[in-house]
Amino acid sequence: MPRSIIPFLLLLFPVMAMSNMANDVQSYELPNGLKIFVQEDHRAPVVVSQVWYKVGSSYEPNGITGISHALEHMMFKGTAKHGPGEFSRIIAENGGEENAFTSTDYTAYYQIMDASKLAISFEMEADRMRNLIVDQKEFEKEIQVVMEERRMRIEDSPQHVAYERFIAAANVSTGYHHLTIGWMNDIRNMTAKDLQKWYENWYGPNNALLVVVGDVKPDEVYKLAEKYFGELKPIELPVIKPQVELKPLGKQQLVVKQPAQLPWFIMGYNVPVIKTDTKNNDPYVLSMISAILSDGNSGRLDKHLVRNQQVAASISASYDPTDRLSGLFKFQGTPAQYHSVADVQKAVFEQINALKEKPVAANELEKVKAGVVAAKIYDKDAISNQATEIGSLESVGLSWKLRDEFIKHISAVTPAQIQEVARRYFIDDNLTVTELEPLPLSSKKSKGKGSPPAEPIGTEDKHTRVH
Amino acid sequence: MPRSIIPFLLLLFPVMAMSNMANDVQSYELPNGLKIFVQEDHRAPVVVSQVWYKVGSSYEPNGITGISHALEHMMFKGTAKHGPGEFSRIIAENGGEENAFTSTDYTAYYQIMDASKLAISFEMEADRMRNLIVDQKEFEKEIQVVMEERRMRIEDSPQHVAYERFIAAANVSTGYHHLTIGWMNDIRNMTAKDLQKWYENWYGPNNALLVVVGDVKPDEVYKLAEKYFGELKPIELPVIKPQVELKPLGKQQLVVKQPAQLPWFIMGYNVPVIKTDTKNNDPYVLSMISAILSDGNSGRLDKHLVRNQQVAASISASYDPTDRLSGLFKFQGTPAQYHSVADVQKAVFEQINALKEKPVAANELEKVKAGVVAAKIYDKDAISNQATEIGSLESVGLSWKLRDEFIKHISAVTPAQIQEVARRYFIDDNLTVTELEPLPLSSKKSKGKGSPPAEPIGTEDKHTRVH
Repeated sequence: MPRSIIPFLLLLFPVMAMSNMANDVQSYELPNGLKIFVQEDHRAPVVVSQVWYKVGSSYEPNGITGISHALEHMMFKGTAKHGPGEFSRIIAENGGEENAFTSTDYTAYYQIMDASKLAISFEMEADRMRNLIVDQKEFEKEIQVVMEERRMRIEDSPQHVAYERFIAAANVSTGYHHLTIGWMNDIRNMTAKDLQKWYENWYGPNNALLVVVGDVKPDEVYKLAEKYFGELKPIELPVIKPQVELKPLGKQQLVVKQPAQLPWFIMGYNVPVIKTDTKNNDPYVLSMISAILSDGNSGRLDKHLVRNQQVAASISASYDPTDRLSGLFKFQGTPAQYHSVADVQKAVFEQINALKEKPVAANELEKVKAGVVAAKIYDKDAISNQATEIGSLESVGLSWKLRDEFIKHISAVTPAQIQEVARRYFIDDNLTVTELEPLPLSSKKSKGKGSPPAEPIGTEDKHTRVH
Repeated sequence: MPRSIIPFLLLLFPVMAMSNMANDVQSYELPNGLKIFVQEDHRAPVVVSQVWYKVGSSYEPNGITGISHALEHMMFKGTAKHGPGEFSRIIAENGGEENAFTSTDYTAYYQIMDASKLAISFEMEADRMRNLIVDQKEFEKEIQVVMEERRMRIEDSPQHVAYERFIAAANVSTGYHHLTIGWMNDIRNMTAKDLQKWYENWYGPNNALLVVVGDVKPDEVYKLAEKYFGELKPIELPVIKPQVELKPLGKQQLVVKQPAQLPWFIMGYNVPVIKTDTKNNDPYVLSMISAILSDGNSGRLDKHLVRNQQVAASISASYDPTDRLSGLFKFQGTPAQYHSVADVQKAVFEQINALKEKPVAANELEKVKAGVVAAKIYDKDAISNQATEIGSLESVGLSWKLRDEFIKHISAVTPAQIQEVARRYFIDDNLTVTELEPLPLSSKKSKGKGSPPAEPIGTEDKHTRVH
């Protein structure tokens, strides 16, 4: 959808929010515990089918970090019924697309196909839900692929190297301490047996969600799911310990020296998320603050730091209220030429202080709210996005209904709340700062060029399998 | 042994080191894998008997940190044969002393008794090695004791609070990230089932060492051990993953604000230990450096910072070359009145630079070496210390023989090596600094008084059960 359509949508949004968005997901549960969510969307004869497992890197004990992601790779290596690579081949032959992704909180597999082919997806997903063969030889090859992926995404990207240290320092006591890809040493020492056990522990119908969006009838999807997934036995799941991040007690500052072209910094305040903050609406207020500061290229940070003061080449704020564990309100930026990281940070703190000191004007707030709502609607355009939103919310223990309630909560945020929340969380005692200090590129041993990475840093920690 | 005897011992040490120290431990292994180490010491009709388990807090996955220590507490709660508290009662009735301690790398239980009573100790230790009953009610009581222990030792001690954050920041990717006591949230959510599983996983003859020192005959000890421990079946042990700390990439600085009377700081360089540095002798050189800087009250730090410059009220360096995983070379200190933490750090860096720039004079080096050797001999006086040294070395996978070889390695350290090792490791990129910034004591909610803790910080992370 072109950007220019959004203003038009804005006129419609109060109506759309109330009518089109609510109650359009049918949910079911099979006796074996598989939860099924179906949303009709008949604009095209297409269906997206996703299987979500409630396990990701934040579930991983130290020593085997990265195992959820490594297992995701192995999930394409076949069962007794479908040999290695056959899954992908069959989907492709049927004109479908498929892939998978792993995050801190979940691992998901999806296919996008002609709606008439849904049974093919179900048959194969049900098969690999319990019948995966973790072959030693295939494992040995694939773990090399995973290590190479880590080199490419982390080691060869100075910003990601710095980001990894930042994340580890800011998340001391929870499973968010390590990135989804895991520590290299843990990947290197991973065994097929580890993966087999991880698979047996977590992959079963009672730890999975099936999300289907597209040109389908919910009851028919349910019957089809029953046919293919119904016979799978529930598994005995590990007990999940409640993980709580330590209370920050003072500012943390880290320097990360890496061969790189440009300096960069990332900093974050420890903040709650919807899951950890059930009493009040701080996460919604923080979401609004994030939008005010960094809503595309119209946010305050970009306006003041990049365009007016020209102190930053790039600057952004980010915050995800729907994480499973307590989160971070992050800022990241690169100084403009002839400016330092310290200059940019100073300018960011000025913007943070402005939030604390002066209430956001009504018209600015309304404009930003409209932008947030429009983005939500825009997101709903693709059936994949719809499915992903349902799956990710349900995976972390939030309801899919939140995608609609979210707009209500956001709309209710007041200027006074923004001021109060900014004052409460955006304090030095709550802050971790990591500065990437460039070393000469010639000192870089690997093939990396130290150029800024193609993918955004830290807005999401997902790892999609590369075919 | 009074301190004044040491100079006399120094005259003897080259002889003693060669004669008395070597080959005086008899070692055995039962078919079930129990390793036995016996050292005769007939100066008194006493025996110390220790059972060591090769599991400690660095083996713990996140979510159940502190479980090794919690299990140590539960080990006194009885078996089918001996009810709760009976172990301690029987030992006391027989005129013995007993206790236990947990560390990052091991959990150990010991009795000191009349040598004729060794069988009592063996019978009960063998019994609780496999037959512990983790009773739900006893667990519920004891976990409260553990939480109270944590409050007393950590939460109520500002230096320990700061130390915990320091350790977490300096150890990013290994099991040394958390203290032996564990995160409070993990202790709070620990279950009897968790402990039962931890016990079943790790407590068995093939993961244990029996160390006996005292007025005994080795072969008789072996026969007695065979009688009591011989019938225990070996267990299937979890695979232990090699844990490697991340390469430090830049200086880390943390502020920890706590109600406290005095400012304080701790800082550490990431360095290898004997286990991780098999190629060269850096750990021995680092041990010498530690002795040069901080050998009781005659080290350079004390001499210059406390007595001459009077910038520090207290200052020390510490380093343990016998850890299981890579370690830290630590400095900690409190500024003198009218001085700041920054003043003390500056003075410490001056001493570090002096090590890099100027070779240690031969007479200073010889004096410090003599002190290290004397301390080793002094340590050997108590049979408990002898047993503990054997047990701790063997538990981490080093040989008991190292206690004697250590002296040889130390003696070989040259001024040039000291200079080179100081230059290589004592660099900013390798450094984590944590500063305790005192808040007014009135802001302290708990009963703690913010006074300096009675036990030393960080020289060892052991938790002894308090009866």
